[in-house]
Amino acid sequence: MKTVPKLTLEDARGIMDAAEQRSREIGVDMDIAIADDGGHLLMFHRMDGARITSIDIAISKAFTAAAARRSTRSYAQTGLPGGPAYGIHVSNQCRFMVIPGGLPIFVDHQIVGGIGCSSGHCDQDESVAQAGVDAFLRGLKK
Amino acid sequence: MKTVPKLTLEDARGIMDAAEQRSREIGVDMDIAIADDGGHLLMFHRMDGARITSIDIAISKAFTAAAARRSTRSYAQTGLPGGPAYGIHVSNQCRFMVIPGGLPIFVDHQIVGGIGCSSGHCDQDESVAQAGVDAFLRGLKK
Amino acid sequence: MKTVPKLTLEDARGIMDAAEQRSREIGVDMDIAIADDGGHLLMFHRMDGARITSIDIAISKAFTAAAARRSTRSYAQTGLPGGPAYGIHVSNQCRFMVIPGGLPIFVDHQIVGGIGCSSGHCDQDESVAQAGVDAFLRGLKK
Amino acid sequence: MKTVPKLTLEDARGIMDAAEQRSREIGVDMDIAIADDGGHLLMFHRMDGARITSIDIAISKAFTAAAARRSTRSYAQTGLPGGPAYGIHVSNQCRFMVIPGGLPIFVDHQIVGGIGCSSGHCDQDESVAQAGVDAFLRGLKK
Repeated sequence: MKTVPKLTLEDARGIMDAAEQRSREIGVDMDIAIADDGGHLLMFHRMDGARITSIDIAISKAFTAAAARRSTRSYAQTGLPGGPAYGIHVSNQCRFMVIPGGLPIFVDHQIVGGIGCSSGHCDQDESVAQAGVDAFLRGLKK
Repeated sequence: MKTVPKLTLEDARGIMDAAEQRSREIGVDMDIAIADDGGHLLMFHRMDGARITSIDIAISKAFTAAAARRSTRSYAQTGLPGGPAYGIHVSNQCRFMVIPGGLPIFVDHQIVGGIGCSSGHCDQDESVAQAGVDAFLRGLKK
Repeated sequence: MKTVPKLTLEDARGIMDAAEQRSREIGVDMDIAIADDGGHLLMFHRMDGARITSIDIAISKAFTAAAARRSTRSYAQTGLPGGPAYGIHVSNQCRFMVIPGGLPIFVDHQIVGGIGCSSGHCDQDESVAQAGVDAFLRGLKK
Repeated sequence: MKTVPKLTLEDARGIMDAAEQRSREIGVDMDIAIADDGGHLLMFHRMDGARITSIDIAISKAFTAAAARRSTRSYAQTGLPGGPAYGIHVSNQCRFMVIPGGLPIFVDHQIVGGIGCSSGHCDQDESVAQAGVDAFLRGLKK
């Protein structure tokens, strides 16, 4: 047996608040999803101007980041035609997202979850996700 | 063209807060989903002890209540073997929930969304959903 | 080789007009779908008050009636638990509808399509479908 | 709460008539789909020579344009291998279309729906969709 850290609803609230705040700062309403270490949805918020198609994309980015334990950006190159991971984007019932905007969340090198954002340019999406991760890690150090 | 009311993220926050509070009062952690008038997810929270299988169920209950404009309970009898709606539970890619716990939200007889809860007994699920609806309608009267 | 009759867009318009008119007469807005002899969608209209969940149900009823060459009502009994067709409602990727409201359309004993209606009680759905079939067959006799 | 405009069946009829007329003018029968602001199907017509494979494509183009609030063409470049949205074409259960021929419909900068066409070259598809949008917007000015 081993013991692992686990995100709570309160942890998710803090991550979500920071991500929403960054969205407002950059002026792009987002779909924001937070998954647990199994990739399962913990929390989802759709801001008023966020896209309906991005509901699924945000949730899939959070799933991918948590369950693959890597940023979705890290598959953007290897998942290209000719790359070693080509085809991975249709795995897992097409929920494996290779578009940046999904980030894993680690505590002491142990995966605890992922956050996925969508509705803006992928760099904006990732910036909002990063704000959520950063706020969480800052909170742990207190 | 016609004009219809639409839920905002702030509306969803109020609904979610009331539903979470009811969950804590009855001592059953829930998966709680809120959908817009098209059945699309607006907000989802998983409380710490809520079931992973109930993520999908709560989201599907919110979808069904909003998109069919009726409580999921209203299909529990008609959807039984021999009832006039038998088989409806596998329609809409099996997202049509006939288990109580999904309630539509109307404003001036116009559908604006739905709330779906899951993890407890279906009467508990519906009680939590009702708390969310009630708080929203009370807020409108102020 | 053989020669078969085939529905045209103009045929579908006539069927749809009659079905919409019956819907207005009974005061229940409907989702109405018309399929060709292969069960593939030819025409779909959603009336203003029709349910979103009934989009899929109407299309699946039209598919089932055309492709099984029988009314969806004809499976309501045989598809019950213990009946000879039990389980058929989850076949064809759960598109096999056993709820009344889907009718096949025959010309000289040859299947040419199906019509499926949904949003009311299943008897109302079937009445609207029947109005479409009747108008089509009356038109052929002229 | 906010208030938004909503397409009616009569609005959809006008859009469809104009699109069908353009199809006949260019001599290419089309599958034509119109979705509401949530991406849900409002109306679908298959012209006599239109492809069966294009039923799904037209419906998915209408969904994508409405729910992403952008033309499907706008994803044709960004969705290419190496582009920032590569992989988006398999999101939303593979209903996210990146082939031109899907256009969003806006009223006063508010999304009200989308139209998707398929069966010809993608430029023809988009031309037919544009005819539908143009007719609708002309009608509003009257």
